[in-house]
Amino acid sequence: MKIKVRYAETDKMGVAYYANYFVWFEVGRTERLERAGIPYRVMEEEFGVILPVIEAFAKYRKSVRFDEEIEVIARIVDLSHIKLTFEYRIYNENGDLSCEGYTLHVPVNSKGKVIRFPEYIYEKLRLAHYEDSKT
Amino acid sequence: MKIKVRYAETDKMGVAYYANYFVWFEVGRTERLERAGIPYRVMEEEFGVILPVIEAFAKYRKSVRFDEEIEVIARIVDLSHIKLTFEYRIYNENGDLSCEGYTLHVPVNSKGKVIRFPEYIYEKLRLAHYEDSKT
Amino acid sequence: MKIKVRYAETDKMGVAYYANYFVWFEVGRTERLERAGIPYRVMEEEFGVILPVIEAFAKYRKSVRFDEEIEVIARIVDLSHIKLTFEYRIYNENGDLSCEGYTLHVPVNSKGKVIRFPEYIYEKLRLAHYEDSKT
Amino acid sequence: MKIKVRYAETDKMGVAYYANYFVWFEVGRTERLERAGIPYRVMEEEFGVILPVIEAFAKYRKSVRFDEEIEVIARIVDLSHIKLTFEYRIYNENGDLSCEGYTLHVPVNSKGKVIRFPEYIYEKLRLAHYEDSKT
Repeated sequence: MKIKVRYAETDKMGVAYYANYFVWFEVGRTERLERAGIPYRVMEEEFGVILPVIEAFAKYRKSVRFDEEIEVIARIVDLSHIKLTFEYRIYNENGDLSCEGYTLHVPVNSKGKVIRFPEYIYEKLRLAHYEDSKT
Repeated sequence: MKIKVRYAETDKMGVAYYANYFVWFEVGRTERLERAGIPYRVMEEEFGVILPVIEAFAKYRKSVRFDEEIEVIARIVDLSHIKLTFEYRIYNENGDLSCEGYTLHVPVNSKGKVIRFPEYIYEKLRLAHYEDSKT
Repeated sequence: MKIKVRYAETDKMGVAYYANYFVWFEVGRTERLERAGIPYRVMEEEFGVILPVIEAFAKYRKSVRFDEEIEVIARIVDLSHIKLTFEYRIYNENGDLSCEGYTLHVPVNSKGKVIRFPEYIYEKLRLAHYEDSKT
Repeated sequence: MKIKVRYAETDKMGVAYYANYFVWFEVGRTERLERAGIPYRVMEEEFGVILPVIEAFAKYRKSVRFDEEIEVIARIVDLSHIKLTFEYRIYNENGDLSCEGYTLHVPVNSKGKVIRFPEYIYEKLRLAHYEDSKT
C-alpha cells in the first residue's frame, strides 16, 4: 500500500505530524481487510460490525517528508472471536523503517455493545491471520 | 470564540494550513448556533435536521502561527426556510484580519432530502440573523 | 489522480467532511505540478518559491463515502508572473461530479515576500496552462 | 485544559476518530509546557530545541461525541537531559476517563541531531516534573 505524504500532513517541523501515522495505519488496515475478502465497508454496512480502536501504539524511527512515497504494511497478528490486533510497518521512500506500531480492536454492534465476530467474518480474518503469520 | 492554533494545524510553511480555516469556520458556526439557542447537536439529534455545506469560500489575508490565539466570528447573513449563509472573520492575535469567508447550507433530513427548517429552529435562526444584521 | 476516501476523512454525517475536499484539491495540484515538470517539492526546496493560497472556493454537489474511490482533476486556468489559479473537479466512483472549486495562489519567497515566478518555473506553468486550456 | 469536540473530529461511527486523541495530547502538552514557564513556541524559536515524538500510546475507554466538552490533563512523568515523557488523561463531560496514554520525546536541534536540554529549559521541566509527581 503506497501513499504519498500530503502537504496537509506535514507540520512546522517540516515533516509528517505524528498523529497522521495513525491515519496511515487505518489506510493500511482497510486495505488488509479488503485483501482478506471482508472490506471494512462491508463489515460495517452489511454485518453491522464496527471495529473501534481500544489501544494504539506507534514507535517513530525516521521522519518522512512532503511528497515522499511511503509504504504501509498491515498484518493481523492476533485474533480471537472478540479481539483483533493489527501490526503496522511504514517504510520511507528509501525502504528504511519509518514507523512501526499496532492497534487493538474489539467488534461491537451499532449500539456499541461488544459482540463476537460472525463466523463468516471470523473465517476470513482467520485465513488472513494465517497468511500474515508466515510473512 | 477564541482558538489557539495547534501544532497539528501547521504545515511545513510554518503557518496554519489553509484547509484548517474551514474547520475553524465550523467551530465558529457551532458556537453561533449555540448562542442562538439552537445548538447544532440538538438540531441534529432532536430535530433530525442536518446542515451540509453547499458552498464554501475563504480569502486569506495574513497567515497565523502555532500557538497564536485567534478569534473566530461567525454571523448569519442570509436565511430562508431552505437556505442559511454564515459569514466568518478570523482575526490574528494582534487583531488583524487573517481570513474571511462564508459557507452556504441547506437543511436536509437524515436521508439527505432537502427539507424546510422546522418553525422552532427557523425562529431561533431568524432572531440570530436579525441580531447579526446589526453588527 | 485517484484517491480512496479514508475513515479519518468522514464525519458523523457518514460522508466526507467538507474541509477535506481542500486537502484533495492540494493532492490534485501537487500531481498537476509534478506532471508539468515542476514538482512543488522542487519549487520550494530548489527555487525557494512557496505558493500560499490566497482564495479558496468549493461547491459541493454529491457527498462521497468511506472507501469510495474518487478522482481529482486539477487544471491551471489562469497564470501570470505573480498569480496562479487552479480549478478542480472531484468525481465520485460513479463518475458523477461531487465537487468543483478553485484556489488562487501567489508566489512568495521564504520570507513571505511576493515575488515573480522565475522564468524556468513560469515556462513550465505556461505550457501546463496551455495544455489545460484545451481540455 | 478544556476542549470542545469539533465536528471535523468525528467520523462515521458518530464519535471522535482515534487519531485525534493524539492531537488533544499535543494540546495538553503545549499547555503543560506553557504552565511550566517554557512555552513550546519559545523552546523552538528562541532555543532551537524541537521535541519530536519517539513513541506514542493511547488506551481508549469511552468514546466522546461532537460538541462534548472534554478535559485534557498532561503530566511530565519522566525526565532526563535527553528524554521527556508526558502522560495524558482525557475525561469526558461526565468526568469519566475517556482515554489515557503517553508520548516519549527527545530534544533535537534544527538539523534533527539529538541534543541535551539546555539548563534553563531543563530546570523548568524539572520543577514541572516535581509538581506533577505530587498529583
